[in-house]
Amino acid sequence: MKKSFGPKALIFPTPVWCVASYDADGKANVMTVAWGGICCSSPACLGISIRKATHSYGNIMHSKAFTVNVPSKSQAKAADYFGMVSGKSHNKFIETGLTPIRANHVNAPFIKEFPMILECNVIHSYEIGLHTQIIGEIMDVRVDESALDADGMPDIIKVNPFLYVPETCSYTSIGTETWKAFDISLIKKE
Amino acid sequence: MKKSFGPKALIFPTPVWCVASYDADGKANVMTVAWGGICCSSPACLGISIRKATHSYGNIMHSKAFTVNVPSKSQAKAADYFGMVSGKSHNKFIETGLTPIRANHVNAPFIKEFPMILECNVIHSYEIGLHTQIIGEIMDVRVDESALDADGMPDIIKVNPFLYVPETCSYTSIGTETWKAFDISLIKKE
Repeated sequence: MKKSFGPKALIFPTPVWCVASYDADGKANVMTVAWGGICCSSPACLGISIRKATHSYGNIMHSKAFTVNVPSKSQAKAADYFGMVSGKSHNKFIETGLTPIRANHVNAPFIKEFPMILECNVIHSYEIGLHTQIIGEIMDVRVDESALDADGMPDIIKVNPFLYVPETCSYTSIGTETWKAFDISLIKKE
Repeated sequence: MKKSFGPKALIFPTPVWCVASYDADGKANVMTVAWGGICCSSPACLGISIRKATHSYGNIMHSKAFTVNVPSKSQAKAADYFGMVSGKSHNKFIETGLTPIRANHVNAPFIKEFPMILECNVIHSYEIGLHTQIIGEIMDVRVDESALDADGMPDIIKVNPFLYVPETCSYTSIGTETWKAFDISLIKKE
């Protein structure tokens, strides 16, 4: 039997992504989002959804750019903090001691200490309801060399991102078991 | 130092969600997506991105509905299979032995055996590029009673979803460590 929870923004998994932007004065800000995902392979794009009331909304609409910074579990406290206070009254970089660096390809800062960062230019925005969905074209993905696998590819276990759990408002770690996708033996067998 | 991977649809984490729909003859189909995420809290909405070439695209545009079915790790083989063959030439429900059940609120089937299902009505679709992003308003979320915590809420450890890893085309399990979000002690300390 399944229990009904009604029309809720409740699904597993959802990410923890720290979205960084500059305000009109060039001050770096960052907020944490769980409402987002890749939305196109070509051009490579992702969507993040934020409320108009946030400081980041104004920043991103003005600068037409943002970065998505993937925190490692060891950085969970900073990521949690970024989701609780507003850049209107806080300098979250100074308060956490993290370092904003100007991105190479877009007019936004990235977080030097985070292991995986994506530089995005805004190409669309859609009014859905409480949240506006902002579509960013991914101009570059960069990953710490210490978080690469033996083939030089990003290693999710080393990046060690974590998940947001809606409704119970908690976080969950990722595991260590990995296996190949697109197992063609399944096609033959089934 | 960070290594640049260029403009790629590459970020951690991305989900593994099985999207089910009916074709014009009422035949149930299902495909697996990793490009998606919640995009609004009110109305509760999620976005999934699929290519026009898929059988599911035609189904969903015709029926204006779909379900998102979250597989448990024990169902990973079926989910992987759903992402490899087309409903144009395969009956993926018969081939995997899984059971399509008509949803309560929308014109789409859900997968009886999967622990978490969301019923969605299409309210927007956006052409991004190779992928079309389809926005579904979430009409209901239902979770197996065996996957609830002591408070009757969905327990991510019991649902046991897994993650898709772009570029290396693999899957990763979730972990067992959980902790509270929105830790207000951080505001006082920092």
